[in-house]
Amino acid sequence: MRAVVLHAPKDLRVEEIAAAPAPAAGEVRVAVSHGGICGSDLHYYHHGGFGTVRVREPMALGHEVSGIVTEVGSGVTGLAEGDRVAVNPSRPCGACEYCLRGLANHCLDMRFNGSAMRVPHEQGLFRAQVTLPAAQMVKLSAEADLALAAMSEPLAVCLHAVRLAGSLTGKRVVVSGCGPIGCLTIAAARHAGAEEIIATDLSATALGAARLMGADRTIELSQDPEALASLGAGKGQVDVAFECSGAPPAVIAACAFLRPRGLLVTVGLGPETSLPMSAIVTRELQILGSFRFAPEFATAARMIDAGRIDPRPLLTRVLPADAAVSAFELASDKTRAMKVQISFPAP
Amino acid sequence: MRAVVLHAPKDLRVEEIAAAPAPAAGEVRVAVSHGGICGSDLHYYHHGGFGTVRVREPMALGHEVSGIVTEVGSGVTGLAEGDRVAVNPSRPCGACEYCLRGLANHCLDMRFNGSAMRVPHEQGLFRAQVTLPAAQMVKLSAEADLALAAMSEPLAVCLHAVRLAGSLTGKRVVVSGCGPIGCLTIAAARHAGAEEIIATDLSATALGAARLMGADRTIELSQDPEALASLGAGKGQVDVAFECSGAPPAVIAACAFLRPRGLLVTVGLGPETSLPMSAIVTRELQILGSFRFAPEFATAARMIDAGRIDPRPLLTRVLPADAAVSAFELASDKTRAMKVQISFPAP
Amino acid sequence: MRAVVLHAPKDLRVEEIAAAPAPAAGEVRVAVSHGGICGSDLHYYHHGGFGTVRVREPMALGHEVSGIVTEVGSGVTGLAEGDRVAVNPSRPCGACEYCLRGLANHCLDMRFNGSAMRVPHEQGLFRAQVTLPAAQMVKLSAEADLALAAMSEPLAVCLHAVRLAGSLTGKRVVVSGCGPIGCLTIAAARHAGAEEIIATDLSATALGAARLMGADRTIELSQDPEALASLGAGKGQVDVAFECSGAPPAVIAACAFLRPRGLLVTVGLGPETSLPMSAIVTRELQILGSFRFAPEFATAARMIDAGRIDPRPLLTRVLPADAAVSAFELASDKTRAMKVQISFPAP
Amino acid sequence: MRAVVLHAPKDLRVEEIAAAPAPAAGEVRVAVSHGGICGSDLHYYHHGGFGTVRVREPMALGHEVSGIVTEVGSGVTGLAEGDRVAVNPSRPCGACEYCLRGLANHCLDMRFNGSAMRVPHEQGLFRAQVTLPAAQMVKLSAEADLALAAMSEPLAVCLHAVRLAGSLTGKRVVVSGCGPIGCLTIAAARHAGAEEIIATDLSATALGAARLMGADRTIELSQDPEALASLGAGKGQVDVAFECSGAPPAVIAACAFLRPRGLLVTVGLGPETSLPMSAIVTRELQILGSFRFAPEFATAARMIDAGRIDPRPLLTRVLPADAAVSAFELASDKTRAMKVQISFPAP
Repeated sequence: MRAVVLHAPKDLRVEEIAAAPAPAAGEVRVAVSHGGICGSDLHYYHHGGFGTVRVREPMALGHEVSGIVTEVGSGVTGLAEGDRVAVNPSRPCGACEYCLRGLANHCLDMRFNGSAMRVPHEQGLFRAQVTLPAAQMVKLSAEADLALAAMSEPLAVCLHAVRLAGSLTGKRVVVSGCGPIGCLTIAAARHAGAEEIIATDLSATALGAARLMGADRTIELSQDPEALASLGAGKGQVDVAFECSGAPPAVIAACAFLRPRGLLVTVGLGPETSLPMSAIVTRELQILGSFRFAPEFATAARMIDAGRIDPRPLLTRVLPADAAVSAFELASDKTRAMKVQISFPAP
Repeated sequence: MRAVVLHAPKDLRVEEIAAAPAPAAGEVRVAVSHGGICGSDLHYYHHGGFGTVRVREPMALGHEVSGIVTEVGSGVTGLAEGDRVAVNPSRPCGACEYCLRGLANHCLDMRFNGSAMRVPHEQGLFRAQVTLPAAQMVKLSAEADLALAAMSEPLAVCLHAVRLAGSLTGKRVVVSGCGPIGCLTIAAARHAGAEEIIATDLSATALGAARLMGADRTIELSQDPEALASLGAGKGQVDVAFECSGAPPAVIAACAFLRPRGLLVTVGLGPETSLPMSAIVTRELQILGSFRFAPEFATAARMIDAGRIDPRPLLTRVLPADAAVSAFELASDKTRAMKVQISFPAP
Repeated sequence: MRAVVLHAPKDLRVEEIAAAPAPAAGEVRVAVSHGGICGSDLHYYHHGGFGTVRVREPMALGHEVSGIVTEVGSGVTGLAEGDRVAVNPSRPCGACEYCLRGLANHCLDMRFNGSAMRVPHEQGLFRAQVTLPAAQMVKLSAEADLALAAMSEPLAVCLHAVRLAGSLTGKRVVVSGCGPIGCLTIAAARHAGAEEIIATDLSATALGAARLMGADRTIELSQDPEALASLGAGKGQVDVAFECSGAPPAVIAACAFLRPRGLLVTVGLGPETSLPMSAIVTRELQILGSFRFAPEFATAARMIDAGRIDPRPLLTRVLPADAAVSAFELASDKTRAMKVQISFPAP
Repeated sequence: MRAVVLHAPKDLRVEEIAAAPAPAAGEVRVAVSHGGICGSDLHYYHHGGFGTVRVREPMALGHEVSGIVTEVGSGVTGLAEGDRVAVNPSRPCGACEYCLRGLANHCLDMRFNGSAMRVPHEQGLFRAQVTLPAAQMVKLSAEADLALAAMSEPLAVCLHAVRLAGSLTGKRVVVSGCGPIGCLTIAAARHAGAEEIIATDLSATALGAARLMGADRTIELSQDPEALASLGAGKGQVDVAFECSGAPPAVIAACAFLRPRGLLVTVGLGPETSLPMSAIVTRELQILGSFRFAPEFATAARMIDAGRIDPRPLLTRVLPADAAVSAFELASDKTRAMKVQISFPAP
C-alpha cells in the first residue's frame, strides 16, 4: 500500500510499504482518507527534525488524519466496519505519574504518531491504511466531512489552550500568529464566549482567515504598530493573550498590553525570548504554557462533526497522496497556504 | 523633629523637619519606633532611584516601620494613645477599577510612603512622628516587639506571594535568593504547609539564615551546581519555585527544575531575562508575578505579633536614627547584613 | 409622567407621578422604552413581597429596562442625548469591604431599583423617565432593539452563574427549570462552549423555548423520569448543573446525576431543601450559589446588542405601560408566558 | 497468626487465621505494629455496617495501621526487611477514568482494606501480618513512633480536606466536631497557615483536645450558643468551615456564619440535612464534599514522622490485640476516648 515516507531532509517519497496488519485484540484497521500537513511535518521535510530531534530512519509523516474503519479486532466495542473516524495520534501509557494525575499530555512514555523523538520512530499516519488501538479513534457521524475531521488534532491543541485560560466571558482576547493554530484558537475562544477577539499577524492574508474564523478586529503589525501600542494604554487593556506564533516580539508585546493579572497562554514553540521580568512582577502577569491536548481531541472531533466550529476557511487545498511532495511544497509557502491536506483513494 | 531625608544619591541627612501635624479626622499621629532599611531604600541612597524613578526633591526614606500612637483624630475607632502599631505604607485610592476588583496593589492612584514615583513624592516613614490615616495602622498587642513588628511589610510581600501559589500541602518548594525577602518567603511557605523547602543562594551566610527561617535543605550555587541539576531530573522534581533574587540565572534554573505544570512565582525585580519558551510550552509551566501585598499586611503584623513567624534571625542590628548613614552603609554590605533597622527614641 | 406603582398586594396602579428631575452632576435622564416583568415583580404584585421583604410604601416596580437618554448631567462622558441604553438596576456603594474585594453583588449598602429591602424603598424603573447615575447605563448601538436590550439584566444573572462555573469546554451540562432564567442560562452556557446541554422542566412549553435557546436535549420530568435516572448511571454522568427552578426535587436530582467532583450552581431561590449529605461527601460534589451579577451586566447588554445571544424566543408579548395590570396577569400564567414586557411611548 | 475478625454485629473475635503468604513480585509482608480503631470500624462492630453496606462474611477490621517489613517480594525497590512503614489501606485500580483524572479516591474499582463494600470483602489490617503491594507502604525513618504513624490514614483524610480548601493564609476557620478527624483537621489547618481556628463541639472534653491540637478558640455549643450566633454577625464572619461531625445542626450553622463566597468543606458523613438554599444563593456560599484522600497519605505519614504534626494528644490508649473487644468498647465511649489503638507483639 502507499505511504508518504521521509528518508532524509527534502527526500520525501510516496512509496509502497507492507500492508497494515490485521487488527489484534483491541485494535482497528482504518483506511486513511484525509491527512493535514502540520508545521512539524514541514520541519521534518525541510530540516529532518527540530531542536535535538532528528529523523534517523525512514518515517512516514503525518498526525492529522481521518478515515474509515475497514476491520475491527476482537473485543472492540462501539466501532464497526464503515465507521468514519478521526484518528488521535497520541497514545499515552496510562500508567505513569502524569497519566495518573490527569496530565496525559505529559506522559513519561508517550507514543505520538509521526514523531522521531523515540527510536525506533513512531511511524506517522500518511499511510493508505493504519492499524491502531481502538482507543485512538473517535467515531463520527455517517455524514461527517472527512477533510474537516482531519482538523480535529490542531483544533484539540487550541481547545486545550482555551480550556487552560478558564472562563472567557467578558474578556478581551488577543491571538498573535494567525496560521492554522492561531485561527483555530480564535474559533475556540469565540466558541468559549470571549467578548472581543483581536488577531495580530504580519500577513494580511492570515488576518483575512482570522476574520473568517471569528476575529472581531485584526492588526497587521507592519502596517499599524500604533494599534498594538494602544492596547497597552494605562496599565494594559487586554485580559488574555494566546501566543501562537512563537515569535519573540509577539511574546514581548503581550507583556506590554496585558492588564494587571492578565494571562498569556503560550502555544507557539519559539526560541529563547528576552522577557521584561519587572513588568511580569509589577503587573502580576501570568504566563502559562499549553502543550498538545488530552481529553480535548474527542471534543474537537465532535465539535467539527456537529458543525459547532467550521474550519473550512482554513482548508487551502487537498491534493492526492501521490502528489505529496507538491502538497508539502505548497504548505511551505505561507503566502499561499493555510492548511494543505493530502487524500488517499477510498479503499 | 528628626527625619532621615535623602537629598541626592549618597546625600542622606538626619535633619530637623517640621513636627508632624495634629491628626485630622480619620487620622492618627504615631511616634515611629523602628524602621527597617529595604533594598529600594538602598537603591535611592546609592543611585537616587531605580528604573525610570528618580528622587527629584528631598524625600524621607523608609516604608517598614512600627510605632506608638501619640494622638488620635476624630472619628477614629479601635485605636487609642499608647497603642502599638505596625504602619502599612500603602494607601490605595479605594475607587479605581483595580481597587474595586480586589486588586488594591494595582491601584491606578496608589500612594506609597517613601516612593519617588509620584511628584511631589510620597514622603517616607523614617521620621520621628508621622500623621497618617488610621486605616494604615494595624494595632498590635501591648507586649508587641516593635523591632519585629517593623518587619510586617516585607513579610506581607512574602505572604502575598505564597497566597498566590495556592495550597502548598505535599509540595516541594524552592526559594532562590535568601536575602530578607527570600528568608521570609521560606518562613511563609513553611507556615503555609509546604512539605519540603530548598533554599538556593550564592552566599553561605544567607543560606545559614535560610535554614534558621525554616529551609529543609540549602544549595550553595557556586559550590554545588550538581545539586541544582539533580532537581531537574526526569521532567523536573520541583512543584513550586519562589524566585526572590531577580537574578536571570535563578529564573532560568527554575524553568529547568520545575515539573510539568509547575509554578514559578517571581517576587524579585530583575532585568530582562532570556527564557526558554519551549520548556515553558512543552512542560506547561506557569509563571506568576507577585507584587507587594494588599490584605496580607494586617495578616503579617498579627502573625509576627502572635509569634507564629519569628523574623528574629534576620535582624542584623538596630542603630539609632542619628546613625542612619552608618545603618545604610551596613545594610549595603550583603556579606554582613540581612535586615538593618534604625530606631527613634521613645516620644 | 406615568409610572407603574404597587400600593399593596394586587393593587398595582398606572398613575401619574412627578416628572423625573433634571440630572445632577454625573447623572442622566432616560426615557424608559421597554421593561420586562420579573419573577420578583410578580411576588410583589401577588404577595406584596417575599421572605421577610414586604412593600411598606407605594413603590414603582421593575428592574429590567432599556431606554433613550433625554438629558445628560454635567461631568458625564460617553453618553449623549438620544443614546440607546440598557439600565443596570444595581448600584453598589463602591466603598464597603465586598465592593473592594470585587464582589459588588454582596455590597453591604446595595441599592437595587424596584426592591423593598430598604426603607424608603428603592423605586423601580417602570416609570416613563428615570434620573440615575450615568454609571448605571450601558450605551448600545444606534440600531439596538430596545425590547431585547431590556433582557440584559436577566441575562447578566445567567452570565454570572456561567462564569462561576469556569471553563465549560467538553462538559455535559444540565439546566433545570426553563423559565426565562433557565433559558438564558442555556444560551449563556452554549455561548460559553458547553459540549452538551440537557434541559429539564415539568412543562413541555418551557422545554420548547429551551430548545430554541440552545438545549441539545430536553427531559419532560413528568413524562420521562427514566431519562433523568439514566443521567445518574455509574457514579453520575453530568459535569455541571445549573439549578434555575428553586424546586427541591431539582436540587436533589442534581446530587444524584452529578459525577464525582461535579458542580451544582444554584441560581433559583427556593425553600429549605433536604440534601443527601453523604452523596455530597462521597462524590465530592461542589455546590455554588450564584446571586445577581456585577461586571456581567455590561457584557450582557453588549452581547444582546451584537446579536451574540438572541433572547427573541423568550419574548412572549409587549403591552403598553397603561395595560400593566394585564401584562402582570399574563406574566403570571406560566402556561402562556415566558417574558412579558411593558413599553412606554417614545418621549 | 492472630487477627481481629468480625463475624456479626457485636461478635468480634481475636482468632487464629492462616499465616500471611510470602510476598509475590511487587509485594511485601509487614508485621502489623499498631492499629487505630476508626468510626467505621465501630459501625461494623455495633451494627454490622452502615448505609447499605453489611458484613456478609467474616472480615478482619481495621485500616489505620503501621508496621515493620518482614519480607520483600521480587522487584520491590526502596523497601527492606526491618523498615518501618505506614500502611495505606487504599488500592485504586490505576486504570479507570477517575484514576486517570488524578481522582483515585473516586476509583470505579477501589479496594479498601477493612471494607465490606465488595464481596468477597477486602479484609482489614488488624492482623498480625499482612501481605500487600509495596505501593501501599510509606517508608518511615528508623526512629518512627509506630503508634503515631498509625494515625497517617485519618490525618490523610484531613490533609485532603484542607488541600481542597486552597490557601488558608489570613482566613478565619471553623472546625465543627472535634473527634479525631476534627482534631486532625484543626492541626492540618494550622499547619496550612490558617489565621484563626475556632473549634465547636458539644463536649468539653473534645474541645480540650481541639485546643491541644491547635484551636485558638473553642465554643461549647450547649453552653455558649451566642458565641456561634456572633460568628454570623453582618453577612457572616467566617471564611472557611470544615464540618467533621455529620450533624445536621452543624451544617446548618455553617450556612449562617459563613461570609459571602465562604466555603464549607463537608468531611463528616451525616444524614439528609435540610439546607437553607436561599442563604446559599444570596451569599454565594460554596459547599465542597471531601472524601478520603489520594496523594495525601504519603504526605501525612511523612508529616507525623518528621514531627510537623503531633497527634499524641489524641491517643487515648493502646491495648494489646488480644484485648480487642475491650479496645472497641473503650473506643465506643466518646466521653472517655479519642483514638484507641490495638497493638500486636513484635514479630
